[in-house]
Amino acid sequence: MSIPVIFDTDPGVDDAQAIALIMADPEIEVVGFTTTFGNVDIATATRNALLLSELAGQSIPVAQGAAAPLVKTPHPVPDWIHGADGLGNQQLPPVNGKPVELSAAEFIVAETRRRPGEITLVAVGPLGNLATALQLDPSLVDRVKRVVVMGGSIHKGGNVTPAAEANIFSDPHAAARVLTAKWPLTLVGLDVTHKTVIEPARMARIARAQGALGEVLEKSYAFYAEFYRGALGIDGCCPHDSVAVAWLRHPELFTSQRGYLSVVTEGPAEGLTLFAPEGRKYPDQRWQQGGLVDVCLDLDGVAAVDWMESVLTA
Amino acid sequence: MSIPVIFDTDPGVDDAQAIALIMADPEIEVVGFTTTFGNVDIATATRNALLLSELAGQSIPVAQGAAAPLVKTPHPVPDWIHGADGLGNQQLPPVNGKPVELSAAEFIVAETRRRPGEITLVAVGPLGNLATALQLDPSLVDRVKRVVVMGGSIHKGGNVTPAAEANIFSDPHAAARVLTAKWPLTLVGLDVTHKTVIEPARMARIARAQGALGEVLEKSYAFYAEFYRGALGIDGCCPHDSVAVAWLRHPELFTSQRGYLSVVTEGPAEGLTLFAPEGRKYPDQRWQQGGLVDVCLDLDGVAAVDWMESVLTA
Repeated sequence: MSIPVIFDTDPGVDDAQAIALIMADPEIEVVGFTTTFGNVDIATATRNALLLSELAGQSIPVAQGAAAPLVKTPHPVPDWIHGADGLGNQQLPPVNGKPVELSAAEFIVAETRRRPGEITLVAVGPLGNLATALQLDPSLVDRVKRVVVMGGSIHKGGNVTPAAEANIFSDPHAAARVLTAKWPLTLVGLDVTHKTVIEPARMARIARAQGALGEVLEKSYAFYAEFYRGALGIDGCCPHDSVAVAWLRHPELFTSQRGYLSVVTEGPAEGLTLFAPEGRKYPDQRWQQGGLVDVCLDLDGVAAVDWMESVLTA
Repeated sequence: MSIPVIFDTDPGVDDAQAIALIMADPEIEVVGFTTTFGNVDIATATRNALLLSELAGQSIPVAQGAAAPLVKTPHPVPDWIHGADGLGNQQLPPVNGKPVELSAAEFIVAETRRRPGEITLVAVGPLGNLATALQLDPSLVDRVKRVVVMGGSIHKGGNVTPAAEANIFSDPHAAARVLTAKWPLTLVGLDVTHKTVIEPARMARIARAQGALGEVLEKSYAFYAEFYRGALGIDGCCPHDSVAVAWLRHPELFTSQRGYLSVVTEGPAEGLTLFAPEGRKYPDQRWQQGGLVDVCLDLDGVAAVDWMESVLTA
């Protein structure tokens, strides 16, 4: 019995790895990709989602979404991390397909109406599409099976600012809406994604098994790995977005805690995710306004990456 | 050669321990106590500073300071942690002395004028007195030898909110002023104070060696320990404020990093201290506005507490 997933993404090198993973995993049914600005501009995100699906020989609906944050002024695209093309500045093959007519938010609303209670939203970019879908139809909170968000950081500090992880920093107002909506939600942040590394040898084995898609993955990985080597001193890359998929398939590898999230939208902590564990007392109620969610705090990172490799080399 | 210190404090159980420590340490010259609201109201803080000095048979100037935060509405005094008297709700002996005529901020300005370049300010409460002293005389930044602040949390989350440590939360605007002033400053926050515990047996040995002062310390410890047992599941207490003194005397036990601090003054992260290590690149300059400071990130906690005991039982 496979898990129907809408994958909300801004591909992006680690997005591409996660996209390959969910397409390869027989236990996941990819209902569609919804795209957002983030690692790349929105047109590039949509092109990449179409391309990766075509390279895998699959025909998966792609719905184009948010081109900019809800409120804040957009940042420059981080082309020094993902390349201007989002895939490490390589010669990419042409794309044949087109996005569907519906916008990302409309697609999320429509598919969850068609299959109420069945679909899991896995969101690995800025959260504008989910925020807009909630505005289009607030009853969405009762129709999703679960929301899994790759984003935020509870105890590990930020990766783009001292406070903020990149997806939340890119659209903190959208994140505030999504992470405090009262729906079943799991946060997969830097606390766990930084426990995983895809090493060069592992990437080579994955690339060999993935054909034309593997070639694109390997070239994008090489560019992304340069950033990791220079900025973080790591030989390899953290497959952030694939960790959200790992939670969906192997939650037993994770340690999580139940509580409430808040998101800071302004000032020096802009984009910070704050976690108030269930049952803790605070001077006032401001940290406990949203719904109760599950926040991942620890992970057997080697087991998670072993699982990713096993799916991608099967 | 002893170190001249002005100790800015809101005693408070762990303040009282630190006050005993600096009075007992022959390597420290206590130039004066400056008091602030915080763990207790300002009158109680001043009474306790006078009392603790008298119990040790010493005559140390006490200058009364801030009765309330610079900007925010004061919180209720945390009498469930420190007792309404700041010392665990015990029968306290009467006080004979009186505070000096100068306010805390004036005392800091005057003493550092008298002895430029000599005095270290050790601040273990909300930071209103130091902020006010900076407003009275901005050239203070060039006259202190160093400022050592017990407050904040870089990687450990808050203790009163998900984001904030109590001293910073009590007056975030004052903290923002003090932690970004361009003076030589060391931050001793929860990242290191939570590595130290004074266990009951250790407290008993200290109390036996400290006479009349020891009796007051032991009774206040018993009350404070109830809080630690209930709220944190720890058998013993973290001697937060004494850790700032330990840094002054044994910096080699600490691991610190150089960088910039910012303080969040509003919203859900109110009272959060953010740390931007020197040399890191961020999307804009907002995290690097203050002076370069040293932030303690790790500590040999057992060695620190062993040192405290050795001084207090000598």
